[in-house]
Amino acid sequence: MPHIAMSPELAPGTPGLFQYRPETGRPLGELAETLLRSPHSLGRGDRELIATYVSVLNHCKFCSSTHSEVSAAQIDGGRALVDKVLDDVDSAPISPKLRALIKIAGATVEGGHAVTAELVDAARQAGATDTEIHDSVLISAAFCMFNRYCDGLAAIVPDDPRAYAGMAQMIINDGYRMCATGH
Amino acid sequence: MPHIAMSPELAPGTPGLFQYRPETGRPLGELAETLLRSPHSLGRGDRELIATYVSVLNHCKFCSSTHSEVSAAQIDGGRALVDKVLDDVDSAPISPKLRALIKIAGATVEGGHAVTAELVDAARQAGATDTEIHDSVLISAAFCMFNRYCDGLAAIVPDDPRAYAGMAQMIINDGYRMCATGH
Repeated sequence: MPHIAMSPELAPGTPGLFQYRPETGRPLGELAETLLRSPHSLGRGDRELIATYVSVLNHCKFCSSTHSEVSAAQIDGGRALVDKVLDDVDSAPISPKLRALIKIAGATVEGGHAVTAELVDAARQAGATDTEIHDSVLISAAFCMFNRYCDGLAAIVPDDPRAYAGMAQMIINDGYRMCATGH
Repeated sequence: MPHIAMSPELAPGTPGLFQYRPETGRPLGELAETLLRSPHSLGRGDRELIATYVSVLNHCKFCSSTHSEVSAAQIDGGRALVDKVLDDVDSAPISPKLRALIKIAGATVEGGHAVTAELVDAARQAGATDTEIHDSVLISAAFCMFNRYCDGLAAIVPDDPRAYAGMAQMIINDGYRMCATGH
């Protein structure tokens, strides 16, 4: 049960919180849309994988379940690849660049000062651009927020895996602005 | 030196990152404006104090220096009160409600699951509303993002205390939208 009184008509998880307080839901939806879905040199599936990896580190079941579905539906290799990355990023069959960016995102979870020049140099040597490095840090930082927001208010976390498949399909079809505000 | 190539004309710290990537800077500025400056039952100084408390826990010198100035300028008790809260929130001369909200914010830094029903009940018994509880969690979660964003990209952190006084005055006068986008 959430820590605050929320109408049962609101969506579960973070989207329900966006709807509960639309003044903050709007910029949060806009941020997620830009980071995860705007035109980019990193595919949507790759960016959702970074978000999933961070959400697992932060033990956020709602966000990791949702975004792993969204990543699996949009990444070459599908669910099997997502599971391999979550199991062991070092041995998973992904590009050296994506692996280096995921390591930057993982360090960001520990704290900003854990992102070392060595991690950034490794990403750059694997071909990462400044925008890709910037966005990997900010996707991770943003999910350090979304994960805490969701669980800090004890938002509803469905048990049924089909709930996450349905939410993922809505995100893929309509994006995060819609998810946040209903239009 | 920042981990990515940033023009020396950009502002230091997080505002410089907002300007570097305005597509994300705009929603981030809007989020900060709503959480910290919009009409609210919690004063601006109180909300900035929560942001400062979180930024100290996250060891973010840029954010803690800036927001402590913004809080000190807008809270009854000024700098002396801010310093007392940062030194020991239990003995600082603040209301039981603000103390309980700061404890919720501190738990949110540890992780969403650290915000217990007991902490929320204590805030409610001290008179906190659902919106105040919601916003305390989200202010903390948002600064867990801003702090990681700033230090994760090694944004410029001025040594001169006058730099923070100047930034605080700009925030107090013009707000976070201006700080993020220049208009």
